Amino acid sequence: MSLCVVGSVALDSVETPLEKRDNVLGGSAVFFSYAASFYAPVQLAGVVGDDWPAENTAMLQSRGIDTAGLQVVRGGKTFRWRGKYLRNMNDRETLDLQLNVLAGFDPVLPESYRRAKFLFLANGSPVLQMKTLDQCRETTLVVADTMDFYIRTEPNELRQLLKRIDGLVINDSEAKLLTEDDNLVRAGKTVRAMGPKFVVIKKGEHGAMFFGEDEIYTLPAYPTEKVVDPTGAGDSFAGGMMGYLAERNQVDSATLKAALVHGTLTASFTVEDFSLDRLRQIDRKDIDRRMDDYRGMLSFHAMPGRG
Amino acid sequence: MSLCVVGSVALDSVETPLEKRDNVLGGSAVFFSYAASFYAPVQLAGVVGDDWPAENTAMLQSRGIDTAGLQVVRGGKTFRWRGKYLRNMNDRETLDLQLNVLAGFDPVLPESYRRAKFLFLANGSPVLQMKTLDQCRETTLVVADTMDFYIRTEPNELRQLLKRIDGLVINDSEAKLLTEDDNLVRAGKTVRAMGPKFVVIKKGEHGAMFFGEDEIYTLPAYPTEKVVDPTGAGDSFAGGMMGYLAERNQVDSATLKAALVHGTLTASFTVEDFSLDRLRQIDRKDIDRRMDDYRGMLSFHAMPGRG
Repeated sequence: MSLCVVGSVALDSVETPLEKRDNVLGGSAVFFSYAASFYAPVQLAGVVGDDWPAENTAMLQSRGIDTAGLQVVRGGKTFRWRGKYLRNMNDRETLDLQLNVLAGFDPVLPESYRRAKFLFLANGSPVLQMKTLDQCRETTLVVADTMDFYIRTEPNELRQLLKRIDGLVINDSEAKLLTEDDNLVRAGKTVRAMGPKFVVIKKGEHGAMFFGEDEIYTLPAYPTEKVVDPTGAGDSFAGGMMGYLAERNQVDSATLKAALVHGTLTASFTVEDFSLDRLRQIDRKDIDRRMDDYRGMLSFHAMPGRG
Repeated sequence: MSLCVVGSVALDSVETPLEKRDNVLGGSAVFFSYAASFYAPVQLAGVVGDDWPAENTAMLQSRGIDTAGLQVVRGGKTFRWRGKYLRNMNDRETLDLQLNVLAGFDPVLPESYRRAKFLFLANGSPVLQMKTLDQCRETTLVVADTMDFYIRTEPNELRQLLKRIDGLVINDSEAKLLTEDDNLVRAGKTVRAMGPKFVVIKKGEHGAMFFGEDEIYTLPAYPTEKVVDPTGAGDSFAGGMMGYLAERNQVDSATLKAALVHGTLTASFTVEDFSLDRLRQIDRKDIDRRMDDYRGMLSFHAMPGRG
């Protein structure tokens, strides 16, 4: 089933304690699209400048990603982010941020995108997220992401958005900020009470929590010792999750849980190299194999007490 | 099967953002024993002063906990710890620590304890842990805990201990300290290479990781919004784990995984109130019921890709 994502397309420069890369392919919509493309056709909407290498677009297209909604601004420069990960590979500092063409981004979707059944509003201004949402009238499922910046600067607009979406995917620290509660179980419930039918709290190396109408659960991350670059892990998680839902064309609670597992596993590959480098080496069979390991990891047989 | 624990017996004073309690029953050996007593008979070794309320001993005995190895020092004062939890309920400050009789503790075990098959060396000086170990000649399984203080002050003795035990249970921050590695998957493997056949890294609200010869896995914590006092969660985890192993009298990898689940669930009750208050309200059936929930939480059915 058709899956549309609107978000950032970026050229990232990333430093880790071991290595650095300059001007590599990044951005929420890019990580999301590539991850989702293991599962379903994707429509990508975003904006770049004319410094954007055409080979990036070609590579995305080769994955079945529709780039009709990727606006190219003549004379403009692509959004650039430069960041540095600390030794723990979880915390990071933004060293430089150049919004460039993203500052003037007006998400006007191509006609074909407006019939999307599955819509992901990647991290961005809630005002633009709602503007995107207004254009899509045939959605089965709308999921959004947000971040600390918008929680602080556009709290009212974010509250409006939350009433209009089916699901929210959010980091643990942002869930705490939004709810002013340090207990993630309570925080997740509180966010759900703000509107979304379900909430997914991403905990990075500690996995993800799901909050639905009748259930709360935690799924651990897939344990990996090879964490080269965590950039894009959250967006890959969302991409794997939404991609699987679009593939199945179902959003019941069992399918949602399987989707979270697919998100978890897709993200576990993303962090194993810079940019999309690791994802570009794998196919769906690799994800499915890792899923077998993961299922084994979470299976146990415990005897109850006697009497 | 017989299970022996040697560790601290304390009177704790605990402050949380919401409440405080003074001079409540605490200590690693106490939390461990009570948690393990849901599964198997326990032999507790430790030391108290004559300020120790006799009713505490009677209560432990009523749970089938053998207190023959609980030394009472006439004229001595019981080990006291005063701590304060920060808003996130994970980080804590020690406000006051009075070792009292624990400073002179010489773990001489009663004859009956020396035939224990399962032995847990709770957090303490590796020198004393080895002295305890020397007395037990019929063990099937020896598991130890340690902490940052001993990693820093007795690193060589700790290394000797690690070569003599079957399993180590350790906090995430302490595993990082011991290995100087911030990646927990690598850290766990490194600790295992120091001697123990298996290593369990406790991650508090994020669950636990297991490292064995052929397997590494993560189990999430049971999600609870009622975190009243986390004191003793780690020792309850170890108690539930070792108690289940002693009950089954098996230490194969499937039983170890089930034991980690029991540890996880026992600890999830401990944090729901101060001291042993919550554990004292429940029985084995409550743990088994929560296990059914937990199993459901970790079960999923995901379709593989076509072709």
